[in-house]
Amino acid sequence: MSDRNKKAVVLLSGGLDSATAMAMAADEGFEVYAMSFNYGQRHSAELDCASEQANKTAKEHKVVEIDLRAFGGSALTDDIEVPKHNSTDDLSDEIPVTYVPARNTIFLSYALAWAEVLGADDVFIGVNALDYSGYPDCRPEFIEAFEAMANLATVVGVQGRKLTIHTPLIALTKAEIIKRGLELGVDYAKTTSCYDPAPDGRSCGHCDSCLLRRKGFSDIGETDPRKYVGERNE
Amino acid sequence: MSDRNKKAVVLLSGGLDSATAMAMAADEGFEVYAMSFNYGQRHSAELDCASEQANKTAKEHKVVEIDLRAFGGSALTDDIEVPKHNSTDDLSDEIPVTYVPARNTIFLSYALAWAEVLGADDVFIGVNALDYSGYPDCRPEFIEAFEAMANLATVVGVQGRKLTIHTPLIALTKAEIIKRGLELGVDYAKTTSCYDPAPDGRSCGHCDSCLLRRKGFSDIGETDPRKYVGERNE
Repeated sequence: MSDRNKKAVVLLSGGLDSATAMAMAADEGFEVYAMSFNYGQRHSAELDCASEQANKTAKEHKVVEIDLRAFGGSALTDDIEVPKHNSTDDLSDEIPVTYVPARNTIFLSYALAWAEVLGADDVFIGVNALDYSGYPDCRPEFIEAFEAMANLATVVGVQGRKLTIHTPLIALTKAEIIKRGLELGVDYAKTTSCYDPAPDGRSCGHCDSCLLRRKGFSDIGETDPRKYVGERNE
Repeated sequence: MSDRNKKAVVLLSGGLDSATAMAMAADEGFEVYAMSFNYGQRHSAELDCASEQANKTAKEHKVVEIDLRAFGGSALTDDIEVPKHNSTDDLSDEIPVTYVPARNTIFLSYALAWAEVLGADDVFIGVNALDYSGYPDCRPEFIEAFEAMANLATVVGVQGRKLTIHTPLIALTKAEIIKRGLELGVDYAKTTSCYDPAPDGRSCGHCDSCLLRRKGFSDIGETDPRKYVGERNE
């Protein structure tokens, strides 16, 4: 494969999507450099999962400390209550309160910096169709604009190379993502998508993200191996 | 003035250029929110100057801690020797070793996040013509691409507003920048452009940045009030 042994920076959150994107990058023959962010999340479950995924697949894993909390404006980093629902039918089309200002822009900017130092021309981010209904910085047109900007921002463009932002999940449903990940051996027990996990790391099962994830497993007749609060597996 | 009392985020490094850009933003009637970065610089002179400038002009000053050093790759944050010359004729056209990977991309991304939280539609950055000969992320086409991306990245674009990245210095020579700043009352003694200042904060006088700055003052028949190593004013 032409891409074999080429380096790629993969943004890894500890969630289901980015774990799958990383597995797909490795399957395409990339040597994976995983990058996670400690941005004042209210819980460590995400980063614990990111480390477990990276240990299995990545050549190197960098956790960058950033302080998004300084800007406020999001339920994921502030003390705003995370919305809970009983089914995906209750989810709204508005921009979620869990939106973190300019988060993907900042994350991709750090990925770009690391890619430049590594000499990597490829960055993977696990955004997908279900996300970009609500988050402006998950839309395909945002990713295209970021890629265009990135090629002007760095020596990559000056040297006649081209930086590519890969979004292998962008057109997939949650069910399709999970199906692909299971084929590639992703251990989804060691991923968390929950916006509001219990202190022991178990997922709540009722935030927007938990609901979408569980529906994805259900749609393909699989059981989500993640531990949820109040379930038999606790 | 139509922009009076509108908020603007201004990237403030402590150097001559960004101090001037901030003064120009204030002169245009913007309420200034200054943002600086502690990114593992080898000296604190820059941030000391940024604070002095911000205290005079900004409504609020935020210093964001970021660790660009984690990525290496630059004389400003690594232990690479800063190049020294005797005149501006010696400066090369190549990308300087003092280039920090994706620095302006990361800085502008944080500015974008803060602008979104503040509800500001305007960001100022003091890039100029002399810089973009060497740094890819100071070129006008980079700024335009960033602005296009930013309007897709955030709720600003979704809500039908428009985020503008202002580069008031982009077409000015160093001499023209200084002339404008002096008209606006910028105290250039409290700005530093030096890549390699002495432990007491005095500028070296011989790095690329010091040479360009001193030539700018000289071109308009003014004396640089900054203290330099080995000068009478020490």
